[in-house]
Amino acid sequence: MTNHALPEAWRRGLYETIARRRDMRAFLPDPIPDETLARILLAAHQAGSVGLSQPWNFLVVENREVRAQVRAHVEAERLRAADTFEKERREKYLSFKLEGILDAPLNLCVTCDQERFGPSVIGRNTIPETAVYSTCCAVQNLWLAARAEGVGVGWVSIMEPAVLRMILGIPERILPVAYLCVGFVQSFPERPIFESKGWLPRLSLHELVFHDRWDERPRPALLRALATSRIDGPQATLAPTTSAEDRAQ
Amino acid sequence: MTNHALPEAWRRGLYETIARRRDMRAFLPDPIPDETLARILLAAHQAGSVGLSQPWNFLVVENREVRAQVRAHVEAERLRAADTFEKERREKYLSFKLEGILDAPLNLCVTCDQERFGPSVIGRNTIPETAVYSTCCAVQNLWLAARAEGVGVGWVSIMEPAVLRMILGIPERILPVAYLCVGFVQSFPERPIFESKGWLPRLSLHELVFHDRWDERPRPALLRALATSRIDGPQATLAPTTSAEDRAQ
Repeated sequence: MTNHALPEAWRRGLYETIARRRDMRAFLPDPIPDETLARILLAAHQAGSVGLSQPWNFLVVENREVRAQVRAHVEAERLRAADTFEKERREKYLSFKLEGILDAPLNLCVTCDQERFGPSVIGRNTIPETAVYSTCCAVQNLWLAARAEGVGVGWVSIMEPAVLRMILGIPERILPVAYLCVGFVQSFPERPIFESKGWLPRLSLHELVFHDRWDERPRPALLRALATSRIDGPQATLAPTTSAEDRAQ
Repeated sequence: MTNHALPEAWRRGLYETIARRRDMRAFLPDPIPDETLARILLAAHQAGSVGLSQPWNFLVVENREVRAQVRAHVEAERLRAADTFEKERREKYLSFKLEGILDAPLNLCVTCDQERFGPSVIGRNTIPETAVYSTCCAVQNLWLAARAEGVGVGWVSIMEPAVLRMILGIPERILPVAYLCVGFVQSFPERPIFESKGWLPRLSLHELVFHDRWDERPRPALLRALATSRIDGPQATLAPTTSAEDRAQ
Protein backbone atom coordinates (compact mmCIF):
# COMPACT_ATOMS: atom_id res chain seq x y z
CA MET A 1 0.00 0.00 0.00
CA THR A 2 1.37 3.41 -0.96
CA ASN A 3 1.65 5.70 2.02
CA HIS A 4 0.08 9.07 1.30
CA ALA A 5 0.63 10.48 4.77
CA LEU A 6 2.07 13.97 4.63
CA PRO A 7 5.62 14.54 5.96
CA GLU A 8 5.90 14.47 9.74
CA ALA A 9 6.68 18.21 9.94
CA TRP A 10 3.57 19.14 7.94
CA ARG A 11 1.39 16.80 9.98
CA ARG A 12 2.72 18.34 13.15
CA GLY A 13 1.95 21.79 11.73
CA LEU A 14 -1.65 20.82 11.18
CA TYR A 15 -2.09 19.28 14.63
CA GLU A 16 -0.35 22.17 16.38
CA THR A 17 -2.61 24.63 14.58
CA ILE A 18 -5.73 22.66 15.44
CA ALA A 19 -4.70 22.45 19.09
CA ARG A 20 -3.80 26.15 19.36
CA ARG A 21 -6.84 27.62 17.61
CA ARG A 22 -9.00 29.67 20.00
CA ASP A 23 -12.24 31.63 19.87
CA MET A 24 -10.94 35.14 20.58
CA ARG A 25 -12.76 38.16 21.99
CA ALA A 26 -9.94 40.65 22.56
CA PHE A 27 -7.97 42.10 19.67
CA LEU A 28 -5.20 44.54 18.87
CA PRO A 29 -6.15 47.36 16.50
CA ASP A 30 -3.21 46.72 14.12
CA PRO A 31 -4.33 46.25 10.53
CA ILE A 32 -4.05 42.85 8.88
CA PRO A 33 -1.88 42.94 5.74
CA ASP A 34 -3.97 42.29 2.63
CA GLU A 35 -1.70 39.40 1.63
CA THR A 36 -2.34 37.71 4.98
CA LEU A 37 -6.09 38.25 4.70
CA ALA A 38 -6.02 36.89 1.15
CA ARG A 39 -4.25 33.69 2.28
CA ILE A 40 -6.79 33.21 5.06
CA LEU A 41 -9.69 33.63 2.63
CA LEU A 42 -8.05 31.34 0.08
CA ALA A 43 -7.79 28.67 2.76
CA ALA A 44 -11.53 29.04 3.33
CA HIS A 45 -12.24 28.82 -0.39
CA GLN A 46 -10.35 25.52 -0.56
CA ALA A 47 -12.77 23.76 1.75
CA GLY A 48 -14.77 20.91 0.34
CA SER A 49 -18.31 21.79 -0.67
CA VAL A 50 -21.28 19.65 -1.55
CA GLY A 51 -21.04 18.86 -5.28
CA LEU A 52 -18.33 21.57 -5.64
CA SER A 53 -21.04 24.19 -5.10
CA GLN A 54 -18.66 26.64 -3.33
CA PRO A 55 -21.72 28.31 -1.80
CA TRP A 56 -19.82 30.90 0.23
CA ASN A 57 -19.18 34.63 0.02
CA PHE A 58 -16.95 36.68 2.30
CA LEU A 59 -17.93 40.18 3.34
CA VAL A 60 -14.95 42.07 4.69
CA VAL A 61 -16.48 44.65 7.02
CA GLU A 62 -14.09 47.45 7.88
CA ASN A 63 -16.41 50.48 8.09
CA ARG A 64 -16.75 51.44 11.77
CA GLU A 65 -20.30 52.72 11.48
CA VAL A 66 -21.47 49.47 9.96
CA ARG A 67 -19.71 47.54 12.69
CA ALA A 68 -21.18 49.80 15.37
CA GLN A 69 -24.66 48.89 14.12
CA VAL A 70 -23.83 45.19 14.32
CA ARG A 71 -22.40 45.64 17.80
CA ALA A 72 -25.48 47.46 19.08
CA HIS A 73 -27.65 44.54 17.97
CA VAL A 74 -25.31 41.98 19.56
CA GLU A 75 -25.25 43.92 22.82
CA ALA A 76 -29.06 43.92 22.98
CA GLU A 77 -29.12 40.18 22.32
CA ARG A 78 -26.45 39.60 24.96
CA LEU A 79 -28.50 41.33 27.63
CA ARG A 80 -31.67 39.57 26.51
CA ALA A 81 -29.90 36.19 26.83
CA ALA A 82 -28.82 37.07 30.38
CA ASP A 83 -32.42 36.62 31.52
CA THR A 84 -32.21 32.90 30.77
CA PHE A 85 -29.68 32.32 33.58
CA GLU A 86 -30.24 32.09 37.35
CA LYS A 87 -28.78 34.95 39.41
CA GLU A 88 -25.26 33.61 40.15
CA ARG A 89 -24.78 32.19 36.67
CA ARG A 90 -26.14 35.45 35.22
CA GLU A 91 -23.47 37.57 36.89
CA LYS A 92 -20.77 35.24 35.64
CA TYR A 93 -22.33 35.31 32.15
CA LEU A 94 -22.38 39.11 32.12
CA SER A 95 -18.72 39.21 33.16
CA PHE A 96 -17.65 37.43 29.96
CA LYS A 97 -16.43 39.54 27.07
CA LEU A 98 -18.26 37.96 24.14
CA GLU A 99 -17.12 39.95 21.15
CA GLY A 100 -14.50 42.29 19.76
CA ILE A 101 -16.50 43.73 16.86
CA LEU A 102 -15.07 47.22 17.21
CA ASP A 103 -11.70 46.30 18.78
CA ALA A 104 -10.69 44.15 15.82
CA PRO A 105 -9.54 45.91 12.65
CA LEU A 106 -12.10 44.03 10.61
CA ASN A 107 -15.06 41.68 10.73
CA LEU A 108 -15.87 38.92 8.27
CA CYS A 109 -19.36 37.78 7.45
CA VAL A 110 -19.34 34.37 5.78
CA THR A 111 -22.57 33.68 3.93
CA CYS A 112 -24.17 30.72 2.16
CA ASP A 113 -26.05 30.73 -1.13
CA GLN A 114 -28.09 27.53 -0.93
CA GLU A 115 -29.07 27.79 -4.60
CA ARG A 116 -25.63 28.39 -6.16
CA PHE A 117 -25.31 26.50 -9.47
CA GLY A 118 -28.99 25.58 -9.12
CA PRO A 119 -30.11 21.98 -9.52
CA SER A 120 -26.72 20.90 -10.92
CA VAL A 121 -25.30 20.42 -7.46
CA ILE A 122 -24.86 16.73 -6.77
CA GLY A 123 -25.61 15.74 -3.19
CA ARG A 124 -27.68 18.78 -2.22
CA ASN A 125 -31.03 17.28 -3.19
CA THR A 126 -31.80 15.14 -0.20
CA ILE A 127 -30.40 17.48 2.47
CA PRO A 128 -30.46 21.15 1.35
CA GLU A 129 -28.61 22.12 4.55
CA THR A 130 -25.46 20.52 3.14
CA ALA A 131 -24.62 23.89 1.54
CA VAL A 132 -24.57 25.42 5.01
CA TYR A 133 -22.45 22.52 6.25
CA SER A 134 -19.93 23.27 3.47
CA THR A 135 -19.84 26.91 4.48
CA CYS A 136 -19.00 25.92 8.06
CA CYS A 137 -16.13 23.76 6.76
CA ALA A 138 -14.82 26.87 5.00
CA VAL A 139 -15.06 28.80 8.27
CA GLN A 140 -12.99 26.17 10.04
CA ASN A 141 -10.29 26.36 7.33
CA LEU A 142 -10.32 30.15 7.70
CA TRP A 143 -10.03 29.87 11.47
CA LEU A 144 -7.05 27.51 11.27
CA ALA A 145 -5.26 29.58 8.63
CA ALA A 146 -5.76 32.69 10.74
CA ARG A 147 -4.28 30.94 13.78
CA ALA A 148 -1.26 29.85 11.77
CA GLU A 149 -0.79 33.48 10.67
CA GLY A 150 -1.01 34.66 14.29
CA VAL A 151 -4.44 36.20 13.69
CA GLY A 152 -7.28 35.65 16.15
CA VAL A 153 -10.86 34.91 15.11
CA GLY A 154 -13.93 35.26 17.31
CA TRP A 155 -17.26 33.86 16.13
CA VAL A 156 -20.15 36.03 17.31
CA SER A 157 -23.38 34.07 17.25
CA ILE A 158 -25.74 36.13 19.38
CA MET A 159 -27.39 37.93 16.49
CA GLU A 160 -30.48 37.60 14.32
CA PRO A 161 -29.68 36.73 10.69
CA ALA A 162 -32.52 39.05 9.59
CA VAL A 163 -30.94 42.04 11.36
CA LEU A 164 -27.53 41.24 9.92
CA ARG A 165 -29.05 40.99 6.44
CA MET A 166 -30.55 44.43 6.84
CA ILE A 167 -27.34 46.07 8.09
CA LEU A 168 -25.13 44.49 5.41
CA GLY A 169 -27.63 44.54 2.53
CA ILE A 170 -27.60 40.76 2.20
CA PRO A 171 -30.39 39.38 -0.03
CA GLU A 172 -33.14 37.28 1.48
CA ARG A 173 -32.04 34.06 -0.22
CA ILE A 174 -28.53 34.29 1.28
CA LEU A 175 -27.90 32.95 4.79
CA PRO A 176 -25.30 34.74 6.91
CA VAL A 177 -23.69 31.73 8.60
CA ALA A 178 -20.77 33.19 10.54
CA TYR A 179 -19.95 36.67 11.79
CA LEU A 180 -16.30 36.77 12.74
CA CYS A 181 -14.11 39.34 14.47
CA VAL A 182 -10.62 39.12 12.99
CA GLY A 183 -7.42 40.69 14.26
CA PHE A 184 -4.03 40.22 15.84
CA VAL A 185 -4.11 39.43 19.55
CA GLN A 186 -2.04 40.00 22.68
CA SER A 187 -1.89 36.24 23.24
CA PHE A 188 -3.80 33.05 22.56
CA PRO A 189 -4.96 31.46 25.83
CA GLU A 190 -3.80 27.92 26.62
CA ARG A 191 -7.34 26.71 27.12
CA PRO A 192 -10.74 27.96 25.93
CA ILE A 193 -12.01 30.64 28.28
CA PHE A 194 -15.29 28.85 29.09
CA GLU A 195 -13.19 25.88 30.18
CA SER A 196 -10.52 27.71 32.23
CA LYS A 197 -13.19 29.84 33.95
CA GLY A 198 -15.17 26.72 34.89
CA TRP A 199 -18.30 27.55 32.90
CA LEU A 200 -18.47 24.14 31.20
CA PRO A 201 -16.16 21.09 31.40
CA ARG A 202 -14.13 19.67 28.54
CA LEU A 203 -15.70 16.34 27.61
CA SER A 204 -13.54 13.23 27.29
CA LEU A 205 -13.26 12.06 23.73
CA HIS A 206 -13.67 8.37 24.53
CA GLU A 207 -17.10 9.04 25.99
CA LEU A 208 -18.24 10.65 22.75
CA VAL A 209 -17.40 7.73 20.47
CA PHE A 210 -19.83 4.90 19.77
CA HIS A 211 -19.47 1.69 17.78
CA ASP A 212 -21.85 0.53 15.03
CA ARG A 213 -24.92 1.77 16.92
CA TRP A 214 -25.75 4.77 19.09
CA ASP A 215 -24.67 4.30 22.73
CA GLU A 216 -22.60 1.15 22.06
CA ARG A 217 -19.05 1.36 23.41
CA PRO A 218 -16.07 1.12 21.04
CA ARG A 219 -13.91 -1.99 20.80
CA PRO A 220 -11.43 -2.16 23.75
CA ALA A 221 -8.39 -1.45 21.52
CA LEU A 222 -9.99 1.67 20.04
CA LEU A 223 -11.20 2.75 23.48
CA ARG A 224 -7.63 2.49 24.76
CA ALA A 225 -6.31 4.47 21.80
CA LEU A 226 -8.96 7.15 22.33
CA ALA A 227 -8.23 7.43 26.04
CA THR A 228 -4.49 7.82 25.56
CA SER A 229 -4.39 9.74 22.29
CA ARG A 230 -2.65 13.08 22.27
CA ILE A 231 -1.85 15.52 19.57
CA ASP A 232 0.59 18.35 20.05
CA GLY A 233 -0.21 21.83 21.26
CA PRO A 234 -0.81 23.36 24.65
CA GLN A 235 -4.10 21.62 25.47
CA ALA A 236 -3.07 19.64 28.52
CA THR A 237 -6.76 19.18 29.29
CA LEU A 238 -7.08 16.67 26.50
CA ALA A 239 -4.65 14.29 28.14
CA PRO A 240 -6.30 11.27 29.79
CA THR A 241 -5.15 12.26 33.28
CA THR A 242 -7.78 14.98 33.52
CA SER A 243 -10.74 12.94 32.32
CA ALA A 244 -11.63 11.92 35.87
CA GLU A 245 -11.69 15.57 36.90
CA ASP A 246 -13.83 16.39 33.86
CA ARG A 247 -16.33 13.73 34.85
CA ALA A 248 -16.49 15.06 38.40
CA GLN A 249 -17.60 18.52 37.26
CA MET B 1 3.24 43.82 18.59
CA THR B 2 4.13 40.27 19.53
CA ASN B 3 4.05 37.96 16.55
CA HIS B 4 2.03 34.84 17.30
CA ALA B 5 2.32 33.37 13.81
CA LEU B 6 3.25 29.70 13.95
CA PRO B 7 6.67 28.65 12.59
CA GLU B 8 6.91 28.67 8.80
CA ALA B 9 7.15 24.85 8.59
CA TRP B 10 3.95 24.40 10.63
CA ARG B 11 2.12 27.00 8.59
CA ARG B 12 3.17 25.29 5.42
CA GLY B 13 1.94 21.98 6.85
CA LEU B 14 -1.48 23.47 7.45
CA TYR B 15 -1.74 25.06 4.00
CA GLU B 16 -0.46 21.95 2.23
CA THR B 17 -3.01 19.83 4.06
CA ILE B 18 -5.84 22.23 3.24
CA ALA B 19 -4.82 22.30 -0.43
CA ARG B 20 -4.47 18.51 -0.72
CA ARG B 21 -7.67 17.48 1.09
CA ARG B 22 -10.13 15.76 -1.27
CA ASP B 23 -13.62 14.28 -1.09
CA MET B 24 -12.84 10.61 -1.83
CA ARG B 25 -15.10 7.89 -3.19
CA ALA B 26 -12.65 5.02 -3.81
CA PHE B 27 -10.89 3.31 -0.94
CA LEU B 28 -8.47 0.49 -0.17
CA PRO B 29 -9.79 -2.15 2.23
CA ASP B 30 -6.75 -1.94 4.55
CA PRO B 31 -7.76 -1.33 8.17
CA ILE B 32 -6.97 2.02 9.80
CA PRO B 33 -4.78 1.61 12.91
CA ASP B 34 -6.72 2.54 16.04
CA GLU B 35 -4.04 5.08 17.01
CA THR B 36 -4.49 6.85 13.67
CA LEU B 37 -8.27 6.84 13.99
CA ALA B 38 -7.96 8.18 17.54
CA ARG B 39 -5.78 11.09 16.38
CA ILE B 40 -8.27 11.94 13.64
CA LEU B 41 -11.15 11.93 16.11
CA LEU B 42 -9.17 13.96 18.63
CA ALA B 43 -8.57 16.58 15.94
CA ALA B 44 -12.34 16.73 15.42
CA HIS B 45 -12.95 17.05 19.16
CA GLN B 46 -10.61 20.05 19.29
CA ALA B 47 -12.79 22.13 17.02
CA GLY B 48 -14.34 25.23 18.49
CA SER B 49 -17.96 24.86 19.52
CA VAL B 50 -20.59 27.40 20.44
CA GLY B 51 -20.21 28.13 24.16
CA LEU B 52 -17.88 25.08 24.48
CA SER B 53 -20.96 22.88 23.99
CA GLN B 54 -18.98 20.14 22.18
CA PRO B 55 -22.26 18.89 20.69
CA TRP B 56 -20.76 16.06 18.65
CA ASN B 57 -20.67 12.28 18.84
CA PHE B 58 -18.76 9.94 16.55
CA LEU B 59 -20.26 6.62 15.52
CA VAL B 60 -17.59 4.32 14.12
CA VAL B 61 -19.51 2.00 11.82
CA GLU B 62 -17.54 -1.14 10.93
CA ASN B 63 -20.27 -3.80 10.75
CA ARG B 64 -20.79 -4.69 7.09
CA GLU B 65 -24.50 -5.47 7.43
CA VAL B 66 -25.17 -2.08 8.95
CA ARG B 67 -23.18 -0.40 6.19
CA ALA B 68 -25.01 -2.44 3.54
CA GLN B 69 -28.30 -1.05 4.85
CA VAL B 70 -26.96 2.50 4.63
CA ARG B 71 -25.64 1.84 1.13
CA ALA B 72 -28.97 0.47 -0.11
CA HIS B 73 -30.68 3.68 1.02
CA VAL B 74 -28.03 5.88 -0.60
CA GLU B 75 -28.28 3.95 -3.86
CA ALA B 76 -32.04 4.48 -3.96
CA GLU B 77 -31.57 8.21 -3.32
CA ARG B 78 -28.85 8.42 -5.98
CA LEU B 79 -31.17 6.99 -8.63
CA ARG B 80 -34.04 9.17 -7.45
CA ALA B 81 -31.83 12.29 -7.80
CA ALA B 82 -30.93 11.26 -11.38
CA ASP B 83 -34.45 12.23 -12.47
CA THR B 84 -33.68 15.86 -11.72
CA PHE B 85 -31.13 16.08 -14.57
CA GLU B 86 -31.68 16.39 -18.33
CA LYS B 87 -30.68 13.34 -20.40
CA GLU B 88 -27.03 14.15 -21.20
CA ARG B 89 -26.32 15.49 -17.72
CA ARG B 90 -28.11 12.48 -16.24
CA GLU B 91 -25.79 9.99 -17.94
CA LYS B 92 -22.76 11.89 -16.73
CA TYR B 93 -24.28 12.07 -13.23
CA LEU B 94 -24.88 8.32 -13.18
CA SER B 95 -21.27 7.70 -14.26
CA PHE B 96 -19.91 9.30 -11.10
CA LYS B 97 -18.99 7.04 -8.22
CA LEU B 98 -20.54 8.88 -5.28
CA GLU B 99 -19.66 6.74 -2.27
CA GLY B 100 -17.36 4.05 -0.93
CA ILE B 101 -19.51 2.91 1.98
CA LEU B 102 -18.60 -0.77 1.62
CA ASP B 103 -15.16 -0.32 0.01
CA ALA B 104 -13.80 1.67 2.94
CA PRO B 105 -12.88 -0.24 6.10
CA LEU B 106 -15.11 2.00 8.18
CA ASN B 107 -17.72 4.74 8.09
CA LEU B 108 -18.09 7.58 10.56
CA CYS B 109 -21.38 9.19 11.42
CA VAL B 110 -20.85 12.57 13.09
CA THR B 111 -23.92 13.72 14.99
CA CYS B 112 -25.06 16.87 16.76
CA ASP B 113 -26.89 17.13 20.08
CA GLN B 114 -28.47 20.58 19.90
CA GLU B 115 -29.41 20.44 23.59
CA ARG B 116 -26.08 19.37 25.10
CA PHE B 117 -25.46 21.19 28.41
CA GLY B 118 -28.96 22.63 28.12
CA PRO B 119 -29.54 26.35 28.54
CA SER B 120 -26.03 26.93 29.88
CA VAL B 121 -24.60 27.20 26.40
CA ILE B 122 -23.65 30.79 25.72
CA GLY B 123 -24.30 31.88 22.15
CA ARG B 124 -26.80 29.16 21.19
CA ASN B 125 -29.88 31.12 22.22
CA THR B 126 -30.36 33.36 19.21
CA ILE B 127 -29.35 30.84 16.53
CA PRO B 128 -29.94 27.23 17.67
CA GLU B 129 -28.27 26.00 14.44
CA THR B 130 -24.91 27.14 15.80
CA ALA B 131 -24.54 23.69 17.39
CA VAL B 132 -24.75 22.18 13.92
CA TYR B 133 -22.24 24.75 12.66
CA SER B 134 -19.83 23.65 15.39
CA THR B 135 -20.27 20.03 14.38
CA CYS B 136 -19.33 20.89 10.80
CA CYS B 137 -16.18 22.62 12.06
CA ALA B 138 -15.31 19.35 13.81
CA VAL B 139 -15.86 17.48 10.54
CA GLN B 140 -13.44 19.79 8.74
CA ASN B 141 -10.78 19.22 11.41
CA LEU B 142 -11.35 15.47 11.04
CA TRP B 143 -11.06 15.70 7.26
CA LEU B 144 -7.78 17.63 7.43
CA ALA B 145 -6.27 15.31 10.05
CA ALA B 146 -7.24 12.31 7.95
CA ARG B 147 -5.56 13.83 4.88
CA ALA B 148 -2.40 14.49 6.86
CA GLU B 149 -2.42 10.83 7.96
CA GLY B 150 -2.87 9.70 4.35
CA VAL B 151 -6.47 8.66 5.01
CA GLY B 152 -9.23 9.58 2.57
CA VAL B 153 -12.65 10.84 3.66
CA GLY B 154 -15.77 10.93 1.49
CA TRP B 155 -18.86 12.77 2.72
CA VAL B 156 -22.05 11.04 1.59
CA SER B 157 -24.95 13.43 1.68
CA ILE B 158 -27.62 11.75 -0.43
CA MET B 159 -29.46 10.20 2.49
CA GLU B 160 -32.44 10.95 4.69
CA PRO B 161 -31.50 11.71 8.32
CA ALA B 162 -34.62 9.81 9.45
CA VAL B 163 -33.50 6.63 7.67
CA LEU B 164 -29.98 6.94 9.06
CA ARG B 165 -31.41 7.40 12.56
CA MET B 166 -33.41 4.21 12.19
CA ILE B 167 -30.48 2.14 10.91
CA LEU B 168 -28.03 3.38 13.55
CA GLY B 169 -30.46 3.68 16.47
CA ILE B 170 -29.88 7.42 16.79
CA PRO B 171 -32.43 9.18 19.05
CA GLU B 172 -34.87 11.66 17.57
CA ARG B 173 -33.28 14.69 19.27
CA ILE B 174 -29.87 13.95 17.72
CA LEU B 175 -29.12 15.19 14.19
CA PRO B 176 -26.83 13.06 12.03
CA VAL B 177 -24.81 15.82 10.33
CA ALA B 178 -22.16 13.95 8.34
CA TYR B 179 -21.87 10.38 7.09
CA LEU B 180 -18.27 9.77 6.09
CA CYS B 181 -16.50 6.91 4.33
CA VAL B 182 -12.99 6.64 5.76
CA GLY B 183 -10.04 4.62 4.46
CA PHE B 184 -6.65 4.62 2.84
CA VAL B 185 -6.67 5.41 -0.88
CA GLN B 186 -4.74 4.54 -4.01
CA SER B 187 -4.08 8.23 -4.60
CA PHE B 188 -5.49 11.67 -3.89
CA PRO B 189 -6.46 13.41 -7.14
CA GLU B 190 -4.81 16.73 -7.95
CA ARG B 191 -8.15 18.45 -8.41
CA PRO B 192 -11.67 17.70 -7.16
CA ILE B 193 -13.35 15.21 -9.49
CA PHE B 194 -16.35 17.45 -10.25
CA GLU B 195 -13.85 20.09 -11.38
CA SER B 196 -11.50 17.90 -13.46
CA LYS B 197 -14.47 16.18 -15.13
CA GLY B 198 -15.99 19.53 -16.05
CA TRP B 199 -19.18 19.18 -14.02
CA LEU B 200 -18.85 22.57 -12.34
CA PRO B 201 -16.13 25.26 -12.56
CA ARG B 202 -13.90 26.38 -9.72
CA LEU B 203 -14.96 29.91 -8.79
CA SER B 204 -12.37 32.68 -8.54
CA LEU B 205 -11.89 33.81 -4.97
CA HIS B 206 -11.77 37.51 -5.77
CA GLU B 207 -15.29 37.34 -7.18
CA LEU B 208 -16.61 35.91 -3.92
CA VAL B 209 -15.33 38.67 -1.65
CA PHE B 210 -17.33 41.83 -0.92
CA HIS B 211 -16.48 44.94 1.05
CA ASP B 212 -18.63 46.43 3.84
CA ARG B 213 -21.88 45.63 1.99
CA TRP B 214 -23.15 42.79 -0.17
CA ASP B 215 -22.07 43.12 -3.82
CA GLU B 216 -19.55 45.92 -3.19
CA ARG B 217 -16.10 45.20 -4.59
CA PRO B 218 -13.07 45.03 -2.27
CA ARG B 219 -10.49 47.80 -2.06
CA PRO B 220 -8.03 47.60 -5.02
CA ALA B 221 -5.11 46.48 -2.83
CA LEU B 222 -7.12 43.63 -1.33
CA LEU B 223 -8.52 42.71 -4.74
CA ARG B 224 -4.97 42.46 -6.07
CA ALA B 225 -3.90 40.32 -3.13
CA LEU B 226 -6.92 38.05 -3.62
CA ALA B 227 -6.27 37.66 -7.34
CA THR B 228 -2.62 36.73 -6.90
CA SER B 229 -2.76 34.82 -3.62
CA ARG B 230 -1.50 31.26 -3.62
CA ILE B 231 -1.01 28.74 -0.94
CA ASP B 232 0.99 25.57 -1.46
CA GLY B 233 -0.31 22.25 -2.62
CA PRO B 234 -1.20 20.81 -6.01
CA GLN B 235 -4.22 23.01 -6.78
CA ALA B 236 -2.94 24.83 -9.85
CA THR B 237 -6.55 25.82 -10.56
CA LEU B 238 -6.44 28.32 -7.76
CA ALA B 239 -3.70 30.30 -9.46
CA PRO B 240 -4.89 33.51 -11.13
CA THR B 241 -3.90 32.28 -14.60
CA THR B 242 -6.88 29.97 -14.78
CA SER B 243 -9.52 32.37 -13.54
CA ALA B 244 -10.31 33.53 -17.10
CA GLU B 245 -10.88 29.94 -18.12
CA ASP B 246 -13.07 29.43 -15.05
CA ARG B 247 -15.20 32.39 -16.01
CA ALA B 248 -15.54 31.08 -19.57
CA GLN B 249 -17.11 27.80 -18.43
